[in-house]
Amino acid sequence: MRVALGQFNAIVGDLAGNAQKMRQIYARAVKAGVDLLAFPELAICGYPPEDLLHKQHFLRDCSLTLKRLAADCPDKTVIVGFAEGEGAKSYNSAAVIQGGKVRKVYRKGMLPNYGVFDERRYFHPGAEPLVINAEGLDVAITVCFDIWNIRWLRKFLAGAGAIQMILNISASPFYTGKITAREKVINACAKELNCAVAYCNLVGGQDELIFDGRSIFADSTGRLVAKAKAFDEDLIIADVVPAADGTVQIEPVQPAARQPSNPVDEIYQALVLGTRDYTRKNGFKKVLLGLSGGIDSSVTAAIAVAALNCENVIGISMPSEFNSPETISDAEKLANNLGIEFHTIPIGPMLGQFHQSLQTVEGWNDEGIAYENLQARIRGCILMSLSNRFGSLVLTTGNKSETAVGYSTLYGDTAGGFGVIKDVPKTIVYELAEHINEIGGRQIIPEDVITRPPSAELRPDQKDSDSLPDYDLLDRILKGYVEEDKSIAELVAQGLPEDVVSKVIRMVDRNEYKRRLSPPGIKITPKAFGKDRRLPITNLYSHSQDTA
Amino acid sequence: MRVALGQFNAIVGDLAGNAQKMRQIYARAVKAGVDLLAFPELAICGYPPEDLLHKQHFLRDCSLTLKRLAADCPDKTVIVGFAEGEGAKSYNSAAVIQGGKVRKVYRKGMLPNYGVFDERRYFHPGAEPLVINAEGLDVAITVCFDIWNIRWLRKFLAGAGAIQMILNISASPFYTGKITAREKVINACAKELNCAVAYCNLVGGQDELIFDGRSIFADSTGRLVAKAKAFDEDLIIADVVPAADGTVQIEPVQPAARQPSNPVDEIYQALVLGTRDYTRKNGFKKVLLGLSGGIDSSVTAAIAVAALNCENVIGISMPSEFNSPETISDAEKLANNLGIEFHTIPIGPMLGQFHQSLQTVEGWNDEGIAYENLQARIRGCILMSLSNRFGSLVLTTGNKSETAVGYSTLYGDTAGGFGVIKDVPKTIVYELAEHINEIGGRQIIPEDVITRPPSAELRPDQKDSDSLPDYDLLDRILKGYVEEDKSIAELVAQGLPEDVVSKVIRMVDRNEYKRRLSPPGIKITPKAFGKDRRLPITNLYSHSQDTA
Repeated sequence: MRVALGQFNAIVGDLAGNAQKMRQIYARAVKAGVDLLAFPELAICGYPPEDLLHKQHFLRDCSLTLKRLAADCPDKTVIVGFAEGEGAKSYNSAAVIQGGKVRKVYRKGMLPNYGVFDERRYFHPGAEPLVINAEGLDVAITVCFDIWNIRWLRKFLAGAGAIQMILNISASPFYTGKITAREKVINACAKELNCAVAYCNLVGGQDELIFDGRSIFADSTGRLVAKAKAFDEDLIIADVVPAADGTVQIEPVQPAARQPSNPVDEIYQALVLGTRDYTRKNGFKKVLLGLSGGIDSSVTAAIAVAALNCENVIGISMPSEFNSPETISDAEKLANNLGIEFHTIPIGPMLGQFHQSLQTVEGWNDEGIAYENLQARIRGCILMSLSNRFGSLVLTTGNKSETAVGYSTLYGDTAGGFGVIKDVPKTIVYELAEHINEIGGRQIIPEDVITRPPSAELRPDQKDSDSLPDYDLLDRILKGYVEEDKSIAELVAQGLPEDVVSKVIRMVDRNEYKRRLSPPGIKITPKAFGKDRRLPITNLYSHSQDTA
Repeated sequence: MRVALGQFNAIVGDLAGNAQKMRQIYARAVKAGVDLLAFPELAICGYPPEDLLHKQHFLRDCSLTLKRLAADCPDKTVIVGFAEGEGAKSYNSAAVIQGGKVRKVYRKGMLPNYGVFDERRYFHPGAEPLVINAEGLDVAITVCFDIWNIRWLRKFLAGAGAIQMILNISASPFYTGKITAREKVINACAKELNCAVAYCNLVGGQDELIFDGRSIFADSTGRLVAKAKAFDEDLIIADVVPAADGTVQIEPVQPAARQPSNPVDEIYQALVLGTRDYTRKNGFKKVLLGLSGGIDSSVTAAIAVAALNCENVIGISMPSEFNSPETISDAEKLANNLGIEFHTIPIGPMLGQFHQSLQTVEGWNDEGIAYENLQARIRGCILMSLSNRFGSLVLTTGNKSETAVGYSTLYGDTAGGFGVIKDVPKTIVYELAEHINEIGGRQIIPEDVITRPPSAELRPDQKDSDSLPDYDLLDRILKGYVEEDKSIAELVAQGLPEDVVSKVIRMVDRNEYKRRLSPPGIKITPKAFGKDRRLPITNLYSHSQDTA
């Protein structure tokens, strides 16, 4: 049996567009002599559709779109994910199209409701396995999380008889290292159930999530025989061949797809895809960002150029008296290296005018946090004004380390539409800068930008290290506290200094409101700020834990 | 048996503080001769603790706090809600304290995972009913949602034998009309199970949620015999008396508490409590807001004064050349009526300076949306600067109607920390203004403010009605689309004009990003923007639905 996995970039809510893409892929699969073609989980409506699923007319439109698609796929077996409404209940389902009609429907049994997932909010779990026969092979249909609990799956499929292949359609979001976990699951699934596995994953960016593709064929020994492209659409095809010895073999039709060369390259590709998709899917052509001459805005600009081409990226330098000539010139140098439109708008005149007007309120002065934040907010106003005038999306440039501790100005440098490196720890921002220069084959990000001690340049001689621990230490603490939910005591037991740990945790806790009011950004770690980590703003826990 | 319901204002995460409050209530209950005292759902940690529940040390601290509280309550039966960790699992539990020890634990069986609720994200459901005997009466312990599905409850309690009372500890969030639904549930529960019901609800504001208290005693005929205060702490006590005829009677110990006089009064009280609690629980003393002389900022200011007293509210007028002398003077009049600190900072000088600087980018001019938004953003900068300088919280003044259609400037008038009337439709904002004047016994909000056609005053002679339908019509469309998830076709079938419906829905859909980036506000409707309504930003559904 010849099987194809149609890993494509579905757009949430674009039912007609998604179906049209699937028709085109179907035509290619037919030409390649495919017997069975699979599309990802919820391919009809994109993933995750969130509360669109509460609209009855949305569910009806999904069914209608599915029927029309089925009618246009008369010659082969096609498996496609869709949101199924039945009475007051909804299911995360896989339709089996044969002879141009939806012949059977499998309903996802295991509904994830953790991390970024809310599937129990929307769906009822299915309770019946589905095994179809295609070209003499028995194929069990599963959806995403169904194969992640092998004990459950074994039990679920127990009464279904012998199978030669498990087909899994997924929308499995990316984070660094996720592919390893996913490959382990597929390997275990093949070995435990002694069958081939065909795993079709979604690709594309959707708000804060990236789906990284990398659909997989595994043979019944668990060997991963073929893997589709990462972070791009692909159609991989293989022959699934039961052997005389009871094993099921996989014979790929195409050469192996190139994979990310290392973890930093993987993150880089995720960020490029995420930036492109958020921009394009939301109808923007161009993006706009402030260039400070620092590492964060430089890396963000380079990613934007990789995502959208240099003619669609505009850099704005907004120097004040506190910016050094070096950073100002580095901003321009970077813009030249990237070949992007570049403007300079000094903020001094506006700052002076605000200061004069605010002095009418007794107690206002030009010192401290308020005056520093005002500078960032003037910059935010400039970027948003240009965005409104020219219709370009403002990219914010804050990294995960500063987002975590609130080292940013609300409605200042956090003002914008999308945070490219919001989930990238500062230490990895540096690695990305090196990577960008390496793959560019030249010094795109000036050496100074990488080596100069980081500074917000909001007061004379300011350095990040005045307010924050070294980023190496900070990122270790943040990983433990934010991503692993460890306590102060547990972090100290790891050898981290208690005073720094306490200070950092206090900063993280106190700045929940700032994160809640910041634009979405691309998730690349196991736990990003956003749907992944839902903490109350009003929360006295950190202060009370030792006195309960 | 004498039963007391300790309806108190728990703060999320403030384990020590919450326990201390319960100790004080316990002392009062002992004095009143109470046999059984109940506290709300998750009273130890506040509701909802969200992802704090993912921290193992948080669960340990909850248990520790519970044990210490139990030791200080040696003489009576006390029922208290807490988050229970056991191995890798967590439960939403009710502890039964007797003799100064936790004797038994009931685990909530029905976990809501819709609307604002995410309990399946955190908890495993319990599977065992718990009936305790106190003073000869058999009392079934339940938690919140357990009693909302009477068929489930009947089955769940079937094997537990006869009971005289159901005790339900709740954290049931408020919206207009919720009390009616809740009373129906309690009535049905009493009648169906032929027992008294003692219902102890939480009170207080937590981020976007308001818990309205109004704890209830019902007798076994379903009659609601006693109800605690709305939107305030209370301790209500009643004797639960089994009668010879098999009924269970309720004899309240205190006079009836005063209840909100009408639906607008109910909303008003909710907003006052929500504003007070968000401000105080987050450590702010004062609040700050822009006063435009319009109805939204006037109502917001009056609510802030009711919540925090006039000395803690600061109004800032920020006129431009587009503001009429009438609105400017109304802003000042309102501030005088409320007795609050008031400053005037004209924005002209900043606007002129921005305009001059932005003109260095070809294509910038002083017309259209960008120039209008810039005015709102300068005002946002001023408010945020004063907030940073003086440590006061900025209240935003957008209502639900304009929040829905995006009739606001991102990082401009949406800049702030908390949106008091964010979930209040414009038509109800007017009713609130009348109500404020009525209960104030004088014209606090000037008559002109109520009668003048609303305007954002960002260009000459601008009126809201230039861009939006009449608010009566707009609010009807929004109720159908936002709160009831109706389609265009369904709304048109209700008699609403198709062109206006389509235009409004397009505006709602396109402005999801603006709402995502706006501060939290107080939920008063069945579906508020926030946790209640989770839509993707990247979403092409509205454009594709007719062409699928």
